[in-house]
Amino acid sequence: MSGLTRFGVSIDSELIKKFDALVGRKGYSTRSEAIRDMIRDSLVEQEWESNDRETVGTITIVYNHHTRELEHALTDMQHRSFHQIVSTLHVHLDAHNCLEVLVVKGLSQDIRKIADRLIGTRGVKHGKLTTTTTGKELA
Amino acid sequence: MSGLTRFGVSIDSELIKKFDALVGRKGYSTRSEAIRDMIRDSLVEQEWESNDRETVGTITIVYNHHTRELEHALTDMQHRSFHQIVSTLHVHLDAHNCLEVLVVKGLSQDIRKIADRLIGTRGVKHGKLTTTTTGKELA
Amino acid sequence: MSGLTRFGVSIDSELIKKFDALVGRKGYSTRSEAIRDMIRDSLVEQEWESNDRETVGTITIVYNHHTRELEHALTDMQHRSFHQIVSTLHVHLDAHNCLEVLVVKGLSQDIRKIADRLIGTRGVKHGKLTTTTTGKELA
Amino acid sequence: MSGLTRFGVSIDSELIKKFDALVGRKGYSTRSEAIRDMIRDSLVEQEWESNDRETVGTITIVYNHHTRELEHALTDMQHRSFHQIVSTLHVHLDAHNCLEVLVVKGLSQDIRKIADRLIGTRGVKHGKLTTTTTGKELA
Repeated sequence: MSGLTRFGVSIDSELIKKFDALVGRKGYSTRSEAIRDMIRDSLVEQEWESNDRETVGTITIVYNHHTRELEHALTDMQHRSFHQIVSTLHVHLDAHNCLEVLVVKGLSQDIRKIADRLIGTRGVKHGKLTTTTTGKELA
Repeated sequence: MSGLTRFGVSIDSELIKKFDALVGRKGYSTRSEAIRDMIRDSLVEQEWESNDRETVGTITIVYNHHTRELEHALTDMQHRSFHQIVSTLHVHLDAHNCLEVLVVKGLSQDIRKIADRLIGTRGVKHGKLTTTTTGKELA
Repeated sequence: MSGLTRFGVSIDSELIKKFDALVGRKGYSTRSEAIRDMIRDSLVEQEWESNDRETVGTITIVYNHHTRELEHALTDMQHRSFHQIVSTLHVHLDAHNCLEVLVVKGLSQDIRKIADRLIGTRGVKHGKLTTTTTGKELA
Repeated sequence: MSGLTRFGVSIDSELIKKFDALVGRKGYSTRSEAIRDMIRDSLVEQEWESNDRETVGTITIVYNHHTRELEHALTDMQHRSFHQIVSTLHVHLDAHNCLEVLVVKGLSQDIRKIADRLIGTRGVKHGKLTTTTTGKELA
């Protein structure tokens, strides 16, 4: 387990005043926490640019559940890519519309392929890949 | 239930050739489906810009489950915002890291506030709001 | 002129090691400079969300210069919006393609309208609005 | 010179009604033009993902012109990367703040490197890389 370090940031007084207001509005308890989040954010971005590291994403799709084609595609996908698809959540938004979130773990290019395939299926009204992280490399 | 319309798009031959290759790579079965997705995408973007319409988002957070503070915040949040938080999915990524996805429904500004609050909680390593839709307005 | 402040950030040792690598790769001379940039970036994002503050953007368009319609639109635009359009740069990319960058200053909603209008003109192959700042509020 | 093609898109009547409203608001004269723009947009995105094709970007930076370091960096950069930097535009925003736009042509990775280097220079308050295109491959 790694220890804590402390380092100093020099900054213009006006700039930090404005940042403090933003930190408050976003609900951070300290500046350090806000800055750590920015740092982690930039590292996750990097993580997704390299193709050979395991990472995590969520795929969110909204679709009309009357569409057979999608159900088949989803089931098929979850069998063929069961190593990558960790878990799924299904929500009935109303009588017609469903939302499904898939948590996917793997190489970024594999995750992208699964996302493209699902979002491109007939009946999916809206779909998005959210890039996040295994958390392993982020203390 | 509304009917189907058909309209024509005139386009340079070279451009459509390149688009067809992209459509294939993304796994769409027809051009129409790819174009409908682009159209819906731009409408969802619009939906999130207006503050007075009900919409849907997912909030994805990765955190260290040893962090007490977050568990409290999550529980607290889900009670105070239970009208907005529709459902949640929890995944154990490894011995230390958890991923949680919350499906949130409400006004875009309320959803943003919930996302800011959760992402700003100490112990959250990475968090993102994904903007999607109720699907109601998207045929 | 406002003074300099110094504040401490506590951070996990592993995390700062990874951040230092990123800081180096991006060409920053110090951590402070990288962090100030992240802070300013989040403030500029905020600046664009409020509709009543003066801000600055650049509009980049690539177009076929044989298209008359665009030249008219550009000229027309620059007369009607001359308060907002500060300056333009024109580059001949090849025998057919031109790139034009417009520097625009005004309320964010006005800038967006000008960008939409230009990007939507027939003959424009690609267009983008880049959101930046007057710099006034960023020390 | 390549010819024009026409293809049909089938779409739900409600969806096209909403899209027509958006097309109008964005100032497009026809649906076809709006759709061609979406298609080109997705192709430019692809262009930037491959590392071995020549492409075009603009780098926008806002900085305090009293900062010597940046002027040196800019001059230095323009000499070392003169093959890539096609043209620059300089605007005095006020007594202290300047905006500079550089039009850069080359491999996407080289353009990214130049952008990182400039944005990371001390004195730059805000900087952004805008990814666009040579226009050659977009009819």
